[in-house]
Amino acid sequence: MNVRLTSPGPTLGVVGGGQLGRMLGEAAGPLGIEIVVLDPTPDCPASPVVNDQIVGEFDDPDGLRELAERADVLTFEIELADPELLETVHEETGVPVEPSPSTLRTIQDKLVQKRSLAEAEIPVPEFRRVDSVEDLREAGEELGWPLMLKARRGGYDGRGNVAVDGPEEADDAMAEIGGDAMVEAFVPFDRELSVIGVKGEDTTDAFPVTETIHKQEILRETVTPPQVGNEADQSEIERRAYDVASDVLDQMEGRGVYGIELFEVNGRILVNEIAPRPHNSGHWTIEGAITSQFEQHVRAVMGWPLGTTDRRCPTVTTNILGGVAEPRPAELTGVETVLAGTNANLHWYGKQEVRPLRKMGHITTTGTDPNALLKRTRDLRDAVSFETPE
Amino acid sequence: MNVRLTSPGPTLGVVGGGQLGRMLGEAAGPLGIEIVVLDPTPDCPASPVVNDQIVGEFDDPDGLRELAERADVLTFEIELADPELLETVHEETGVPVEPSPSTLRTIQDKLVQKRSLAEAEIPVPEFRRVDSVEDLREAGEELGWPLMLKARRGGYDGRGNVAVDGPEEADDAMAEIGGDAMVEAFVPFDRELSVIGVKGEDTTDAFPVTETIHKQEILRETVTPPQVGNEADQSEIERRAYDVASDVLDQMEGRGVYGIELFEVNGRILVNEIAPRPHNSGHWTIEGAITSQFEQHVRAVMGWPLGTTDRRCPTVTTNILGGVAEPRPAELTGVETVLAGTNANLHWYGKQEVRPLRKMGHITTTGTDPNALLKRTRDLRDAVSFETPE
Repeated sequence: MNVRLTSPGPTLGVVGGGQLGRMLGEAAGPLGIEIVVLDPTPDCPASPVVNDQIVGEFDDPDGLRELAERADVLTFEIELADPELLETVHEETGVPVEPSPSTLRTIQDKLVQKRSLAEAEIPVPEFRRVDSVEDLREAGEELGWPLMLKARRGGYDGRGNVAVDGPEEADDAMAEIGGDAMVEAFVPFDRELSVIGVKGEDTTDAFPVTETIHKQEILRETVTPPQVGNEADQSEIERRAYDVASDVLDQMEGRGVYGIELFEVNGRILVNEIAPRPHNSGHWTIEGAITSQFEQHVRAVMGWPLGTTDRRCPTVTTNILGGVAEPRPAELTGVETVLAGTNANLHWYGKQEVRPLRKMGHITTTGTDPNALLKRTRDLRDAVSFETPE
Repeated sequence: MNVRLTSPGPTLGVVGGGQLGRMLGEAAGPLGIEIVVLDPTPDCPASPVVNDQIVGEFDDPDGLRELAERADVLTFEIELADPELLETVHEETGVPVEPSPSTLRTIQDKLVQKRSLAEAEIPVPEFRRVDSVEDLREAGEELGWPLMLKARRGGYDGRGNVAVDGPEEADDAMAEIGGDAMVEAFVPFDRELSVIGVKGEDTTDAFPVTETIHKQEILRETVTPPQVGNEADQSEIERRAYDVASDVLDQMEGRGVYGIELFEVNGRILVNEIAPRPHNSGHWTIEGAITSQFEQHVRAVMGWPLGTTDRRCPTVTTNILGGVAEPRPAELTGVETVLAGTNANLHWYGKQEVRPLRKMGHITTTGTDPNALLKRTRDLRDAVSFETPE
């Protein structure tokens, strides 16, 4: 397509103004694209770096209509966006929504998501629908214990997921999740990996694979490239991950980047979960790749040519999580150590309140040896704290 | 110093909201710093990516007071800021101004700037004060022709500079510049170079030297590292440029980055001009260095630790200049070629009007061979145009 730049430039409307919206805003400026976000929290994280915020719930019809009226293209940075409403507003206004609301609908329901992948013969862990304690016990007999019980909708950062070690834990687990769930066989993975894929106007691409390190099901660090034995093993794993990601992208409808979380087990690659948006496991691309996942998402949803996805250099990121027992106003101390860190870049999300394990920012380091970077990055992270010194 | 991050974060008030203010805004977001700019043009380039704009002249006392009231630190991105007013507002409000208004005052007057460098025994081209045609002719007899006649104040991008080839051109040249001028001996340079220096709270540093290519006294391209014969020659030139830059920084008062333009002539380094702010010749640092000059300026003026200035990889930038005969609404075509360029990054400044040779944006490419990058980057630049196709 021909691209013309004007001032003011085209406007991208984003449902959600959290840290992903903020980093979309940071990436859109150099491209000459203005961003308006719809978010219920006044002065949401994206607000200081984007053109404007409409204060409204993610599924507020009036808010979404206003967003569409001001935008040339609509996208979302959170799965809580409402696919039906997006479709309605698209039909009313003609403003394109990327990725497609139908993709969002499929992905929102973890059971439907897994079924659609399985139907496309994409390797996934074994899974079953679970509506009751009985279903859960039956699944355990079939798939073996432990199992991972997941709410079909609305879970994130470990919320809505419960590990179930045996039938005696079934009652408690179902009570915690409620009905409307699914289980997956436990995958004794060697490593967790992630690929950020991207669908453009008529091309598909993916960023180099990254290794993801979780604790309590929350992403803690990414290591790019993954440290996988020798170089031959590494390129083989990278190739397989890329192939699986490519098959996943073929199943997705609509332009944009997709975070594709993977398990590596005995050299096989299984798909864990997909996010139809920029993903925490792709934050390394801001410094570590020629084009960041955020710039790539903006380019893709606008229908512009995609940027180069090549890795600049080995890169490690670590999240700054809310290390507090109770919510309180966010105040991070020790930041001077991160700022003074060699080859270190800080990203603060601007959230007003810190909560236990809430994602508050991240630190990126670049260099040559991923293992050394990982140690150094963890040291930097451990230097900051939300605890007020007595 | 101890650095604490909160939300909302500290506010940096910036006099000027042009492309430098815009890129300061793009760099401040990840650091959690909010930016308010003072600029007379409503919806100035910085406006869509910063927290707020106060619409007012750079030397508007009320505008500057309002800026100071909202800011924790004040800085400027344009030499048209008023040093006296900055000092007054600093005294009234206690808000620090970085770099120091006294440095701005010295630099604003090209004659005073050169004198202060010469007094510090920093090598500069020979120069004379020129108030009349007689002074100019006399300078020509002393220093030889051609000469570069410069208005002492207010010139930029070649405006306010006139080459004078001989005494017969003296009348016209003085008429063009007006009184209050200076002349410099013509320097038969082998190459123009630039170093972005930075003064922090208690450290001084500089980014790697870059080669600058001008035409009609407007910067066209930067090449980093400069292509200077063999590697030994290159490190020797880099060392000398760095040493001169370091001497220059010792003369400057106040924190921030400084653009230091240099001539290389027969292996000697002379200082051409200094800008007390981020500089066009440092745009390569956004992709090409660990920390960008914009992030570095924000860190420095806030009194935070400086970031790593190392080069990531060879990097070339080219300006997108207003290739039009008359001002008109800015509309750039052919942008798809730049977006699709290998390892290419686009920066659009969001100016509403294009004027002849106005700086409208820039293109950066990264890779391994600076010469190949230069050719590729020029090709990308030549693919875009402000001319409306008939």
